[in-house]
Amino acid sequence: MQKVKLYDTTLRDGSQAEGISLSVNDKLRIAEKLGELGVDYIEGGWPGSNPKDMEFFKKAKKLKLRRSKIAAFGSTRRANIPASKDANIKALLRSGCKVITIFGKSWDLHVKEVLKVSMEENLRMIFDSVRYLKSKKLKVFYDAEHFFDGYRHNPEYAISTVLAAQEAGCDAVILCDTNGGMMTNDLERIVMEIRPKVKVSLGIHCHNDSEMAVANSVAAVQAGCDHVQGTINGYGERCGNANLCSIIPCLKLKLGIDCVTNAKLKELTEISRYVAEICNMKQNDNQPFVGQSAFAHKGGVHVNAVLKNPESYEHTLPQLVGNKRRILVSELSGKSTLLIKAKELEADLSKENPQTRKILNLLQDLEHQGYHFEAAEGSFELLVKRALKRHSKHFTLKGFTVIIEKAEDGRLHSEATIKVNVKGKVKHTASEGDGPINALDNALRKALLGFYPKLEEMHLSDFKVRVLDEKAGTAAKVRVLIQSQDKEKSWWTIGVSENVIEASWQALADSVEYKLLKG
Amino acid sequence: MQKVKLYDTTLRDGSQAEGISLSVNDKLRIAEKLGELGVDYIEGGWPGSNPKDMEFFKKAKKLKLRRSKIAAFGSTRRANIPASKDANIKALLRSGCKVITIFGKSWDLHVKEVLKVSMEENLRMIFDSVRYLKSKKLKVFYDAEHFFDGYRHNPEYAISTVLAAQEAGCDAVILCDTNGGMMTNDLERIVMEIRPKVKVSLGIHCHNDSEMAVANSVAAVQAGCDHVQGTINGYGERCGNANLCSIIPCLKLKLGIDCVTNAKLKELTEISRYVAEICNMKQNDNQPFVGQSAFAHKGGVHVNAVLKNPESYEHTLPQLVGNKRRILVSELSGKSTLLIKAKELEADLSKENPQTRKILNLLQDLEHQGYHFEAAEGSFELLVKRALKRHSKHFTLKGFTVIIEKAEDGRLHSEATIKVNVKGKVKHTASEGDGPINALDNALRKALLGFYPKLEEMHLSDFKVRVLDEKAGTAAKVRVLIQSQDKEKSWWTIGVSENVIEASWQALADSVEYKLLKG
Repeated sequence: MQKVKLYDTTLRDGSQAEGISLSVNDKLRIAEKLGELGVDYIEGGWPGSNPKDMEFFKKAKKLKLRRSKIAAFGSTRRANIPASKDANIKALLRSGCKVITIFGKSWDLHVKEVLKVSMEENLRMIFDSVRYLKSKKLKVFYDAEHFFDGYRHNPEYAISTVLAAQEAGCDAVILCDTNGGMMTNDLERIVMEIRPKVKVSLGIHCHNDSEMAVANSVAAVQAGCDHVQGTINGYGERCGNANLCSIIPCLKLKLGIDCVTNAKLKELTEISRYVAEICNMKQNDNQPFVGQSAFAHKGGVHVNAVLKNPESYEHTLPQLVGNKRRILVSELSGKSTLLIKAKELEADLSKENPQTRKILNLLQDLEHQGYHFEAAEGSFELLVKRALKRHSKHFTLKGFTVIIEKAEDGRLHSEATIKVNVKGKVKHTASEGDGPINALDNALRKALLGFYPKLEEMHLSDFKVRVLDEKAGTAAKVRVLIQSQDKEKSWWTIGVSENVIEASWQALADSVEYKLLKG
Repeated sequence: MQKVKLYDTTLRDGSQAEGISLSVNDKLRIAEKLGELGVDYIEGGWPGSNPKDMEFFKKAKKLKLRRSKIAAFGSTRRANIPASKDANIKALLRSGCKVITIFGKSWDLHVKEVLKVSMEENLRMIFDSVRYLKSKKLKVFYDAEHFFDGYRHNPEYAISTVLAAQEAGCDAVILCDTNGGMMTNDLERIVMEIRPKVKVSLGIHCHNDSEMAVANSVAAVQAGCDHVQGTINGYGERCGNANLCSIIPCLKLKLGIDCVTNAKLKELTEISRYVAEICNMKQNDNQPFVGQSAFAHKGGVHVNAVLKNPESYEHTLPQLVGNKRRILVSELSGKSTLLIKAKELEADLSKENPQTRKILNLLQDLEHQGYHFEAAEGSFELLVKRALKRHSKHFTLKGFTVIIEKAEDGRLHSEATIKVNVKGKVKHTASEGDGPINALDNALRKALLGFYPKLEEMHLSDFKVRVLDEKAGTAAKVRVLIQSQDKEKSWWTIGVSENVIEASWQALADSVEYKLLKG
């Protein structure tokens, strides 16, 4: 069975997408998920370009990534200095990564007009940079930027850049369609022409400007590439990069090419959604393989046929990529998923337990409303335990009021009052805050702290707001996720409402309940 | 020059997309636009399947469609009755269309399990239906449904279905990848195998379930197809149909194949947005060729290079498809990016203008606070024009109050009051809403509508909230982005604050100011 290495660049090229901005913490969470998926390489960033990336590399050393290796990205040395003195290359070494990907120019136009160096110096820049990094016992990948455009304009020179990298000892040469303009046919032919000349691993890196990045990547593999670069959900500059969430199932299911395990392939849908969530992007419903509508069937004869013989109307089985066939009202987390999760919580939810169906219905109902328990296990645990009557409330809300005022001079004032019943006593408190949610949070803490001093130990560590039905404009439903932590652990809780204050309240209340449950 | 016929099925297959529902009037407007674009055929619907489609065909006769012809879609006759007695075929005739597309089964599995007729009867159904419609002097296209799956399972039979249609006199045979599972390579090979057997026009109809519909359609043309079916923006069931907004520029610009005129190609971006608008879908920013980010460049050296020689970083010129190059403004971008951007706004910001430095400082200061003008060109334009004193406020905020209450029974109430000064008059209004931001939005509109009736034309189309410094928990700063649109354009505006209400207010206020500025 042919084998292909997967090289994910969501954290570097993917984060160039308009509208995506990842914190170091976001990047660490995505890296962890990519490790679970089992990609071979995770490109973490460009250490020479910004301090945030360097911090990521430092912290990423502590991640458990199974077989995935973190790679750092950078350019070849600048002109007319030794590689060892080049600031960018020094930063690559400082990243501590064992895998370095450097890109260089393969297109004579760029050598002349962008780098403004001689054609020979460009070859030396490639050779020296690879050779120097190899002397440090690192794995070195060479990204041949604009390779296809270069090859069409000046094939001899484009090839000589690749051979310079190969001669210097690089471990793989990656052919890049940087502008995304290649038609599948031409790209495939060029890969076939290059393949015999390259003795090391040959990779492909496509962009989606002609809506062909997935087809081009798969065709390149069929033409001899054994290394594929892409991003989760195809995130990337302009029209995006090649979408690994489509490439992986095409390779595995259509061509029988090994890349991730069958078990991991089943997590693809969840991983796509998880990364979308962290990137604060909405997953496209019509995204192939993993989108919510990817296996949606409308009623009628069609549905019976699909149930009798799915092959008749589906190009692949949705469960192979962890997605679901949708026929009637959306069927969300199935019974077995629930059982697995309940087991994790040490809750008895055998298939015979009548509670199981009840909880499943509740869960489906809430997910339909926009809750997303995958991303909020704190709230999920509370939900299951409440349903099993294994959790009793530590406080009951009697009501709250939040007031936000903006004065003529522009000054803002946020104030909240809250009334809660705690251990039989009614507590009514008020507080100001930096914004309405902070005011509400402060008022709640004021009310509870006397009864539960250990709330002092916890604090909120992350806060996310996501608009669910963007088109509803300012009346749209929002989903709030709050991460809290104490010395030992951290947990996420969730709230959903058309009212951002109410959604935040739900997540806040759960966050406190969870702390009190766990102690 | 090779010539390809374009067959648009946005009104039939496209309208099957989840979330799209078109009225007869919507369909007429889209048909008119397709006529302007100059596609050869506009598939209007399935007259046998619903009365709405029949009404469309009746009204469409009055449209001025230049060279485009309306086509009606339906299936071959049912088993064991003459074509002339088949209700579906009668409806096709009643549509009054001069072009009829009928689909039939090419996959033996479907013949046996879905139709449940003999293999011979299926061939007769195809032959009779085509022959009968041809006897009425109509142009008849034969859609070979599931052709590729059928060919892979039983090539002889699949071919015999196509030959039956050809023998009966059809004008074109269209090979359909109905489930969207074909890899480009295989599809291309099969088209090449079929091409010599078909003497009439050969078409291709792809679905996007493997994210290859565009690549597959283009490869099919290269393999000999001269008729391409698809939809505007790739709308369609599950993962959509082949996207004509990408196929058309690929054929024209990459392969030099004639299909629409150069002048019409320049309207492609506008047509894509127009159809999205009528379908009530948000155009994907990263959509190839026509999306808002399709030619967006980030700052630095890159920007200078792209201006000097666009070919170096762009696979095609945006103006050829009616799109625009966008230089993204961001913290890192220097003076030259600002100058370019200001030029787009027709603002005089020469390097010598003392305002330039001032605006740049302001911009950097705001970006440091968390504003992100790259994503909010509406606010950016207002900022530049305010700094240049080329914009005077249409209203001044005197203050607002927002109150959110949650009662003991869980009921929520959101209310806003707002005081603004408009044209020397103080307007004080109050409104409720679905959540606090909607209440504020409603109150603002109430205050302004009497003075500026054209605010009726705009509505909010997207709303995004992003927490900037997550670790500050509920006191974190948030960035709100609002997209608004009217009939002609859409624009993003921005607000940043620790207070989500205030951040939303800023974006709301800018969104209205921008509309009033542009008219």
